[in-house]
Amino acid sequence: MIYAHFISHISTKNPECNTVSQTEFSHEQLLDRLGEVAVRIGLNLVPQQQLLITASLDAAPLVRRITEHAYRAGASLVTTFFNDDETTLARYQYASPESFDVANEWLADGIARAYREGAARLAITGGNPTLLKGQNPDYIQRSSKASSKANRPAMEIITQFATNWTIVAAANAIWAQQVFPDLSEEDALKALWQGIFTSSRVDTQDPIATWKNHNKQLHARSSQLNEQRFDALAFKGPGTDITIGLADGHLWAGGAEETKSGIICNPNIPTEEVFTTPHCTRVDGVISSTKPLFHQGSLIDGIQVHFKEGKIIEAHASQGQNVLERILDTDEGSRRIGEVALVPHSSPISQSGILYRNTLFDENASSHIALGQSYTKCLSDTDGQNEDQLLRRGANQSMIHIDWMVGSGQIDVDGIKNGQSYPLMRQGEWV
Amino acid sequence: MIYAHFISHISTKNPECNTVSQTEFSHEQLLDRLGEVAVRIGLNLVPQQQLLITASLDAAPLVRRITEHAYRAGASLVTTFFNDDETTLARYQYASPESFDVANEWLADGIARAYREGAARLAITGGNPTLLKGQNPDYIQRSSKASSKANRPAMEIITQFATNWTIVAAANAIWAQQVFPDLSEEDALKALWQGIFTSSRVDTQDPIATWKNHNKQLHARSSQLNEQRFDALAFKGPGTDITIGLADGHLWAGGAEETKSGIICNPNIPTEEVFTTPHCTRVDGVISSTKPLFHQGSLIDGIQVHFKEGKIIEAHASQGQNVLERILDTDEGSRRIGEVALVPHSSPISQSGILYRNTLFDENASSHIALGQSYTKCLSDTDGQNEDQLLRRGANQSMIHIDWMVGSGQIDVDGIKNGQSYPLMRQGEWV
Repeated sequence: MIYAHFISHISTKNPECNTVSQTEFSHEQLLDRLGEVAVRIGLNLVPQQQLLITASLDAAPLVRRITEHAYRAGASLVTTFFNDDETTLARYQYASPESFDVANEWLADGIARAYREGAARLAITGGNPTLLKGQNPDYIQRSSKASSKANRPAMEIITQFATNWTIVAAANAIWAQQVFPDLSEEDALKALWQGIFTSSRVDTQDPIATWKNHNKQLHARSSQLNEQRFDALAFKGPGTDITIGLADGHLWAGGAEETKSGIICNPNIPTEEVFTTPHCTRVDGVISSTKPLFHQGSLIDGIQVHFKEGKIIEAHASQGQNVLERILDTDEGSRRIGEVALVPHSSPISQSGILYRNTLFDENASSHIALGQSYTKCLSDTDGQNEDQLLRRGANQSMIHIDWMVGSGQIDVDGIKNGQSYPLMRQGEWV
Repeated sequence: MIYAHFISHISTKNPECNTVSQTEFSHEQLLDRLGEVAVRIGLNLVPQQQLLITASLDAAPLVRRITEHAYRAGASLVTTFFNDDETTLARYQYASPESFDVANEWLADGIARAYREGAARLAITGGNPTLLKGQNPDYIQRSSKASSKANRPAMEIITQFATNWTIVAAANAIWAQQVFPDLSEEDALKALWQGIFTSSRVDTQDPIATWKNHNKQLHARSSQLNEQRFDALAFKGPGTDITIGLADGHLWAGGAEETKSGIICNPNIPTEEVFTTPHCTRVDGVISSTKPLFHQGSLIDGIQVHFKEGKIIEAHASQGQNVLERILDTDEGSRRIGEVALVPHSSPISQSGILYRNTLFDENASSHIALGQSYTKCLSDTDGQNEDQLLRRGANQSMIHIDWMVGSGQIDVDGIKNGQSYPLMRQGEWV
């Protein structure tokens, strides 16, 4: 699951552009349905809630559809923060070096307060995935660190599901051209929108009912895993032989989540994964990436890392080694993992053959792990426990949370309990 | 002077569209120069200051020019809040009635904190002047009241010049069509931009030097008035015979202002006025509007009001009487005035013949008064004085500040000192 809408994955390979099936709905109708699914399924907005939206300027048409559905659902006030790629770039081009250690804490704290007072949060992912390519990596890292630090109180509320939130996507021409480099600008944009609509299940006859059914299936899978109470998972495949211990009292989740105040929301649209919190000191072995990782405009490919007692002690990448090392050096928790997720190789996004270069989609095409922050939501009985207590149970803490694809049609996964192995996945599919 | 970028004036008459002189600069060059003047003259941004911008979505090209100049001037971080007319309307169309008493206090407080911590503020005025026409007036008033209340701490910092701030304008098609209804959409937009560029003095050879000279002239005028220490001003003309007492220790201002921390900024671009704080209990007589007043999508025309001891005791309007009464009933201070400003009838904006339907421009085409909040900046020795002490000196307090044109080529203004009259303006021109 992702909780920030940073785009963290990319492939340099040309994606196989599967023909996308045409639906009977117009673009305007599908956009409106995506807005409705975002509000009613993604957020499940409650009357008199405020809503905060973050979006790129070019996502304004979707923002308008979401805003209408939010007010229809009883929102008291919708506030949208638009970001603009050009002004983001202007900072890298013209600002003084000291600028990059500064974040707008006054805004981050205001937003955290809004969440504490009950506001819901909706992020629209999109924008240019390679916006910061070629910019000073030191500036990128410092600005990202300052921003993560400022936004930590707000992010904690999000990761703890103290309020309802969701992430949806809006296509734009630059992103579309990177996903479909062989199509014309117009066709690429159409194909990306169609991919978003289809994987977000809004081109079905009744998207709300479709989502309720999809949630049921994901819940059945996570309930099953919760009953099995595995101590660890073992991943085996080309370049991968690793045991990933699970946190004490870990809980598997997938699909709809319940907030602390009892609102059932769907934090990621689309979603295909079931996931839980690994134990941050009980990961041992070697694991290899199965898709390239894209981080803040830089490509990291051919990653292979060695874990010892939960910590990455050796990391190699055939491309982007220095960026990978930078990520690992972010803070105390950035060399350990905070999430492990299982996605069958036959998931609709995986089968579409489209590499979206965007975590919201690509993490739902492959089993994955995430470096950094864990979800306390994936632990039982956390009420009143402080960070130290959670850490002792295995829940990693970090300013980063970077998903990283490790699944494919060649990976076997076993559940391990009391030293005994139970087959979970064979060649990427549920047993 | 205005400190909010609400558009408060409109005319139903077709403006005389004077031919606008062509300059040697391209639109892109003029836009860049407006950005530079906004940052270097309007804000006089100081290295390591943060900058907050508010703008309509269609002002993004100007936001980008301003952002670049801000970073070049040493800004640490520029944060832009874009507003979108369509989502503003969606609230009026779909939200529940209770929604309209809600404001985003978490954001207003965050912004006030940013100003207290030294951030500068830049508002870009524009948008659709008649956006809320036809919407429920009760909803408009309640939402405006909730927003004013939430933003009061931030607005106090602005009116007290505790930080540097400015307002500039960006044209858009809807506004342009209302100003130039006889031109094609394209020509109207061009003409409005040209009007903005010319009145903002950016189509001169050296806009920065031009502004420094303009500030000198406005300072000379306000210094003269400060030396004269009038007790009151008397306005006489068709439908107008009024004495406007000036606050104890009033100060005339105009052009560049100095913030509490010593930054010299130009809060309004353009500006042609000199202005001061009237005494809120010493206004007696009758005064008539010389241009229509437009407030939140409603037109108020043919206004004539009677003041007794500073308070409006009778108010008539040939059009929009009920809206006028609503304004006057906002709070304790909305029946009293907080600003009096002198602008010669020969000012460039007045002589252009363009009615901009936007206070930033129209208030610089005519002498005016403002209902509501006063500027403590226009009082001497205010340090350590509380609201009650300022009120006793005559400085009005209110949630509103609505400028209202009362000057024309037929108005005479006298300064009054110790019962004696001194001619200041005859037939709208400085004596």
